Amino acid sequence: MDKIVVFGHKSPDTDTITSAIVYAYLKNAIGVEAEAVALGEVNNETKFALDKFGFEAPRIIESVANEAKKVILVDHNEKQQSADGIDEVQVMEVIDHHRIANFETADPLYYRAEPVGCTATIINKIFKEKGVEIPSSIAGLMLSAIVSDTLLFKSPTCTEEDVVAARELEKIAGVDVEEYGLAMLKAGADLSDKSLEDLLTLDAKEFGMGDYKVIIAQVNAVDVNDVMDRQAELEELITREIQEKELDLFFFVVTDILNNDSVALALGKLALKAESAFNVKFDNNIALLKGVVSRKKQVVPALTEALTN
Amino acid sequence: MDKIVVFGHKSPDTDTITSAIVYAYLKNAIGVEAEAVALGEVNNETKFALDKFGFEAPRIIESVANEAKKVILVDHNEKQQSADGIDEVQVMEVIDHHRIANFETADPLYYRAEPVGCTATIINKIFKEKGVEIPSSIAGLMLSAIVSDTLLFKSPTCTEEDVVAARELEKIAGVDVEEYGLAMLKAGADLSDKSLEDLLTLDAKEFGMGDYKVIIAQVNAVDVNDVMDRQAELEELITREIQEKELDLFFFVVTDILNNDSVALALGKLALKAESAFNVKFDNNIALLKGVVSRKKQVVPALTEALTN
Repeated sequence: MDKIVVFGHKSPDTDTITSAIVYAYLKNAIGVEAEAVALGEVNNETKFALDKFGFEAPRIIESVANEAKKVILVDHNEKQQSADGIDEVQVMEVIDHHRIANFETADPLYYRAEPVGCTATIINKIFKEKGVEIPSSIAGLMLSAIVSDTLLFKSPTCTEEDVVAARELEKIAGVDVEEYGLAMLKAGADLSDKSLEDLLTLDAKEFGMGDYKVIIAQVNAVDVNDVMDRQAELEELITREIQEKELDLFFFVVTDILNNDSVALALGKLALKAESAFNVKFDNNIALLKGVVSRKKQVVPALTEALTN
Repeated sequence: MDKIVVFGHKSPDTDTITSAIVYAYLKNAIGVEAEAVALGEVNNETKFALDKFGFEAPRIIESVANEAKKVILVDHNEKQQSADGIDEVQVMEVIDHHRIANFETADPLYYRAEPVGCTATIINKIFKEKGVEIPSSIAGLMLSAIVSDTLLFKSPTCTEEDVVAARELEKIAGVDVEEYGLAMLKAGADLSDKSLEDLLTLDAKEFGMGDYKVIIAQVNAVDVNDVMDRQAELEELITREIQEKELDLFFFVVTDILNNDSVALALGKLALKAESAFNVKFDNNIALLKGVVSRKKQVVPALTEALTN
């Protein structure tokens, strides 16, 4: 029980999984016993990165209270995105690049958040600050996280610091970031083994916007038509979800990783608000959102503005 | 309005005031326009430090909304300790060494908290990370903050990192930390120009403990009898405060900066709980608390435990 467990958010993505592994490695390197765990199955993109650099997916935990007394959070801080039982353990550290909300501690802690595109970019700095050498395989994981979170530097969330970190890590990992990165993104966008239910839940986040309840789900695809060809079935599933969860809006975003655009499907009684949010006409509930790839920086702010004004 | 304002908490102490000045200096040195401001008058201890190293007290602001659109918080994060109007501005950064609570942002930010004794210890690291040289006078302010927050390294809140930082800063500032530090603490413990009302409010913080409302006020003194000789008058003022604010406990702590003990005066309907909290007998409402100097690390946890169990 003295061991510290390190984990990212629910519905884990590549940054969350690899940052947990990498940060646990760093803690072990400086003499602190730590284990990376996950709050769910890894996705295809993350699996590609783990396989490439020779790592297993972290053990999945259900609730944290039986696992450890002390924990480190990476890539998130909001309670509803974290492990069940989080209130029963002590958060020793947080390494994150999101806003801070629904987070509170009883004691002082190490909290390191920076407004960059990826948690791995921050951890790369901490390696240097602690004087710990980054092995090639660990560099590969961090590079994968940056590629994933910035869509190969194309997302508006990408900062100069992310690019610089990726260039450093590319050398250590001994891969070509453009070539490897595109292969990894394509692996993540391979939806052939996914059910439609999977597509709607794999990376779905719920938001309160004013008094409204909104779910925004996002998937990456090489060909958005692979997904949108099944619109009728998708709408049936989404409509059921809206009823069950009493949602005001379900916004489903399929992001084209080659052209860096997204196609959105909007359902629910506030679906029309999406038109003013993005200044486009939705035809048969669907619209192309030119240049939109980031939920955090583009979709959430635009919908929040439209729904709360 | 493009300028960023930097400030610490209400009822400012030496760490809060000097960290605002020092961090604004650091931002200016890296090309970001920033101004240190204060949320109240500086105390005698802080004035001693500012005079010694040639600084003026920062301009006092009433509310932050008319001052700037963007702010940096040092030495605090909790909303009730921060500037009025804090919800109307964007918090760009927080540099702090306290727990996180009642804090929330809409956007990602730079948040740097570490569980050390003093904000200045963290800022000392950031100077190095940014490659900015620390001038002698700025080092003097940072050293003053560490001396103040750690009571010259005697407080249980003091960490090895605080001591190391102080030794570095002592050299740059060109002072003897023991000699200068004691003179500064004594200046702060000079209560001759203070009314009894001042003593009860200068450094008073309100806490919710379970369902109870508690105020813990603390002053430093060279001779605790200077304060406690006027117990009858103090009790009259405290009793009035308890009635007006409907407090369950008013706990007044006078800390002996030479012997590193405190004498406490406990009033209110839960005053007896202080006996179990500190395992001492209160005689005529007063007890000596051997080795107790830190409100954060010793008084608050002990009272919280006693009042909520």
